[in-house]
Amino acid sequence: MLINRVAVIGVGLIGGSLARALRARKACTHIIGFGRSPEHLQEAVDLGVIDDFSLTVTDAVKDADMVVLATPLKTYGALLKAMRPYLGDETVITDVGSAKSSVVEVARATLDKLFPHFVPGHPIAGKEKSGVAASAADLFEVHRVILTPLPETDVAAIDKVKQMWEVCGAEVVHLGVEQHDEILAATSHLPHMLAYALVDCLSGMEEREEIFKFAAGGFSDFTRIASSDPQMWHDICFSNRAQLLKAMEAFDDYLNRIRSAIETDNSDELLKIFSRAKATRDRFTRLRDKRNDSIE
Amino acid sequence: MLINRVAVIGVGLIGGSLARALRARKACTHIIGFGRSPEHLQEAVDLGVIDDFSLTVTDAVKDADMVVLATPLKTYGALLKAMRPYLGDETVITDVGSAKSSVVEVARATLDKLFPHFVPGHPIAGKEKSGVAASAADLFEVHRVILTPLPETDVAAIDKVKQMWEVCGAEVVHLGVEQHDEILAATSHLPHMLAYALVDCLSGMEEREEIFKFAAGGFSDFTRIASSDPQMWHDICFSNRAQLLKAMEAFDDYLNRIRSAIETDNSDELLKIFSRAKATRDRFTRLRDKRNDSIE
Repeated sequence: MLINRVAVIGVGLIGGSLARALRARKACTHIIGFGRSPEHLQEAVDLGVIDDFSLTVTDAVKDADMVVLATPLKTYGALLKAMRPYLGDETVITDVGSAKSSVVEVARATLDKLFPHFVPGHPIAGKEKSGVAASAADLFEVHRVILTPLPETDVAAIDKVKQMWEVCGAEVVHLGVEQHDEILAATSHLPHMLAYALVDCLSGMEEREEIFKFAAGGFSDFTRIASSDPQMWHDICFSNRAQLLKAMEAFDDYLNRIRSAIETDNSDELLKIFSRAKATRDRFTRLRDKRNDSIE
Repeated sequence: MLINRVAVIGVGLIGGSLARALRARKACTHIIGFGRSPEHLQEAVDLGVIDDFSLTVTDAVKDADMVVLATPLKTYGALLKAMRPYLGDETVITDVGSAKSSVVEVARATLDKLFPHFVPGHPIAGKEKSGVAASAADLFEVHRVILTPLPETDVAAIDKVKQMWEVCGAEVVHLGVEQHDEILAATSHLPHMLAYALVDCLSGMEEREEIFKFAAGGFSDFTRIASSDPQMWHDICFSNRAQLLKAMEAFDDYLNRIRSAIETDNSDELLKIFSRAKATRDRFTRLRDKRNDSIE
């Protein structure tokens, strides 16, 4: 048995999928869920995702070997503060948040001497659907989980978290905290802003009804991520604010280059930009296909 | 037999798929292809897409009952001018271009008295891959084809083009020329600009290698369309310039609202934008699913 007692704080898509995966692999003896809604938690029990649940975080973490924070980012501070007195000396705490600098700051401030047992984590997996009903035991298979341990982070704690994710089928990699936030701002947070802005923009247009009627496959793929959970993305924006604003500014420059090329009839420049982007995107596809081949 | 002789001007993804579909349904007796590259045209013959080919557009359209323009938009003017003297009085001419105002203008100027036999068309189907090798007989099945006939367009010609697309499994709908260009700018041309700009932006970042390494499924879907043919999209931009610039400007406003909400810590506003966009996108998914159900 890898872990004895796991407390999943927030039994939604990610927390629920982790619980399902750990149970499916018989990697722990007991999983307790914490959340605000007894209905959702009961649903998680009924679905066989968790063993039982508590509506108080202090009860949930008591005697836990592993505590996994999987709630919206802005709840972390209050939750860590509340659970702190009830955490064991050897309890490992980790999270699944999409921004890491702000999480590390909050964890350092609240966990104090236990901070070395906090392993910041981020599984690069998800769906546009949220909630425990959408959770799946195979969500993390052939996906990466990024850990961003600090110099003071306990090596045994890192190893425990690594093993937990590996048993779920994920590949665990390490990144620096800042580096994680910069990369995720570019590859995930910025695209979400573009998808939200695009859908909101189109729904504000006069031809609204016709627009959505004639939208084709490309549009559908492009805006799928705009169906993601608004509260979660609201929290991510403020938690990774500096890097996201930097990425949005950089994007603005590039979009303006395209606009300016169209406005000034700069045919060569426009063709150059599109050709360069296509070459980059094609290279990305090849890299991804190669990776998937080597994993399978 | 629906049509006797069809001339496909430009045997790429769309022209090739149309030819394949017409042959598969035995809807015409002979398909001749025109293009610049004898190698590509020979490939199209070898793949069974067309019966034969000509490297001169005048030969290709001779005795054709239906001429389909499926080359990049900026070639239309020269091609229509060249073929004009060889078109029969009853020949129907149509096209597959993604912008219609500029096409109508060019067709009116070059076709003169034959202009009523020109039926502006646009199949809402495609792939990020281009070329005849990517063409498929079922590309238009359960897809819409938009026709934007003018008041002077010949009713029999419209009907002929409608039947041609319907035999390929498509649903034919009519839109005004301006309305088409506005809708396509919003649902297709603008998203392509965003995808090209995003990929180009990321490839300009310092963490470039890591960025593409950690990009996940959402990013992949979001930027798939940046692999589309640069020359084709270059032409679309200039052909639908006014509507595209208008759409880009509107988008810029909406993206700035998000940026401003993040910058000014306007939590309520950000949550409102994301929630509204999610509701719109979810409604789009339901509409699409309903449509697919009713067609199947």
